[in-house]
Amino acid sequence: MATAENKQVVLERYIEEQPKETDMAIKMGKMELKASKGSGSFLVKNLYLSCDPYMRGRMRDFHGSYIPPFLLSQPIEGFGVAKVLDSDNPDFKPGDFISGFTGWEQYSLIRNTWQLRKIQQHHSLPLSYHLGLLGMPGFTAYVGFYEICSPKKGEYVFVSAASGAVGQLVGQLAKLHGCYVVGSAGSSQKVDLLKNKLGYDEAFNYKEETDLDAALKRYFPEGIDIYFDNVGGAILDAALLNMRIHGRIAVCGMVSLHSISDPKGIQNLFCVVPKRIKMQGFLQSDYLDKFPQFVEHVTENFKLGKIVYIEDMNEGLETAPAAFAGLFSGKNIGKQVICVARD
Amino acid sequence: MATAENKQVVLERYIEEQPKETDMAIKMGKMELKASKGSGSFLVKNLYLSCDPYMRGRMRDFHGSYIPPFLLSQPIEGFGVAKVLDSDNPDFKPGDFISGFTGWEQYSLIRNTWQLRKIQQHHSLPLSYHLGLLGMPGFTAYVGFYEICSPKKGEYVFVSAASGAVGQLVGQLAKLHGCYVVGSAGSSQKVDLLKNKLGYDEAFNYKEETDLDAALKRYFPEGIDIYFDNVGGAILDAALLNMRIHGRIAVCGMVSLHSISDPKGIQNLFCVVPKRIKMQGFLQSDYLDKFPQFVEHVTENFKLGKIVYIEDMNEGLETAPAAFAGLFSGKNIGKQVICVARD
Repeated sequence: MATAENKQVVLERYIEEQPKETDMAIKMGKMELKASKGSGSFLVKNLYLSCDPYMRGRMRDFHGSYIPPFLLSQPIEGFGVAKVLDSDNPDFKPGDFISGFTGWEQYSLIRNTWQLRKIQQHHSLPLSYHLGLLGMPGFTAYVGFYEICSPKKGEYVFVSAASGAVGQLVGQLAKLHGCYVVGSAGSSQKVDLLKNKLGYDEAFNYKEETDLDAALKRYFPEGIDIYFDNVGGAILDAALLNMRIHGRIAVCGMVSLHSISDPKGIQNLFCVVPKRIKMQGFLQSDYLDKFPQFVEHVTENFKLGKIVYIEDMNEGLETAPAAFAGLFSGKNIGKQVICVARD
Repeated sequence: MATAENKQVVLERYIEEQPKETDMAIKMGKMELKASKGSGSFLVKNLYLSCDPYMRGRMRDFHGSYIPPFLLSQPIEGFGVAKVLDSDNPDFKPGDFISGFTGWEQYSLIRNTWQLRKIQQHHSLPLSYHLGLLGMPGFTAYVGFYEICSPKKGEYVFVSAASGAVGQLVGQLAKLHGCYVVGSAGSSQKVDLLKNKLGYDEAFNYKEETDLDAALKRYFPEGIDIYFDNVGGAILDAALLNMRIHGRIAVCGMVSLHSISDPKGIQNLFCVVPKRIKMQGFLQSDYLDKFPQFVEHVTENFKLGKIVYIEDMNEGLETAPAAFAGLFSGKNIGKQVICVARD
């Protein structure tokens, strides 16, 4: 059986601060392209890998979270799209395309099938979309918007990191639902995309606002019913001041707070009582029974041209460390994906 | 028709910081003891007045909240128990006892009947209990625990300000529901009451703890399912670190944050995502349809000796300013009530 060179991206050290390119390293390994009999595993060739902000949590040496830390000097684990080369698992056959947890490497041996899905290919949907629009980020948007925010037609919706992997779909779902939607992002290029491609009613560059409270008052003179929070920090604080009574905040990620003690903290939580705000953290993985209806809803609207999706595709596994680090300074435009191989 | 001297407690100035006794003043007025024909109003003699932390919000010159500020130089408005002396409202007759919004004065003319209730007297239940156990604070405990926290038997419940007007009932409802309950309070006397009178499984004096996180880890080695938050601030921050997955935080009051910018803010909100925490502010007045079942549940358990209630009763209207200010330094033991007259 063939043994192949297997380029890998490994974690060099556990971190507390923002991830840097140099926290990861490229390593050359070897991989026997075979799933051994009786193991139930299967061997895949990785095609596309996903860079997601939650992965930062796994770079910490902290075992109390919902998902354990990465192992040092081992390939980073993340969502990917891959092609099955050899299999000892009757559910997955050579030639199948799958999406799910795989390694940041050229070839992976997969045992754990939690959240692993066989891809039914559509001509109109690129394979890599199973990491974004039709993958974990898209499902996060769907679950957060429908299950956590309980949206009603005509409500005022604010989305931060609005052009990101999750945010871009939240805004489009909200528009399809008949809401008024405003997004924030960190560059004028992203603001343009929000207004001209993603269908947001309004958008602004938070870096150009000296007073975020005033900015939100300008875009939401009537206040905010739903805040889909992808960032935490100062934007959350300003949103709290502008929520309407019975407002809902879906807390999806706190890029700006992750693992760092923000010395300022959140100042405006006192608003939750008089405004009866519900603030809820969530993970898509608690709602997997809703996955089929999510795929149907999004695929249908995509085919009708009512949903679009923006990807930021880097070519080559060796670009992954820089691409991942770039997430935390907002370098990516749209969903950050690494192309390892096209097929 | 008789005109009587009418002693009043009025607000002297709007405040930003913690209320002081001198922010209020005693004034002598006069009151015609009559409800004029066609007005729909009725004239009451105030018997018991309630000192509640939320009233602090009405001492600010801020009009954006759920309830407007007090008027300067006018009697402070608050919940009270009163006896009807004269009435132009067919629903309220002389001799009736009522609980609801009245003035901090000896006699009040009442027009607004929102949240006003005629009291069905029970021999075993003191009239003043309609300001606490059977009034707004008790109903706040009931709504917060059952509607916001969705408790399950066997869950771990933490209550702050646990011997206060709301907290003491939360703990007892949680025990009746089969939960394990720990309370925090600000003196050893209160801790004693929690353990020996109010049926808490454990209690601690937060002022004696140098590390609140460590204290909660000691009392909740398995973590907290439900945190009933009456204070906000540092205790909320420590609770966030100790919540279990799918934990719920009912945010009832933030005495420690109310209207003050806490320079430290809340640091640990990042916990809400991995732990999928639901944090919800609420007001009892959104759930008034549940009031009858609340009264039934609490009255029944009180008569069976399964619920007790601790009051801190001050004698005389002129004691109200100091008693109210005392709430914010934890001077009161149990529900703070002012006795204006016994009948």
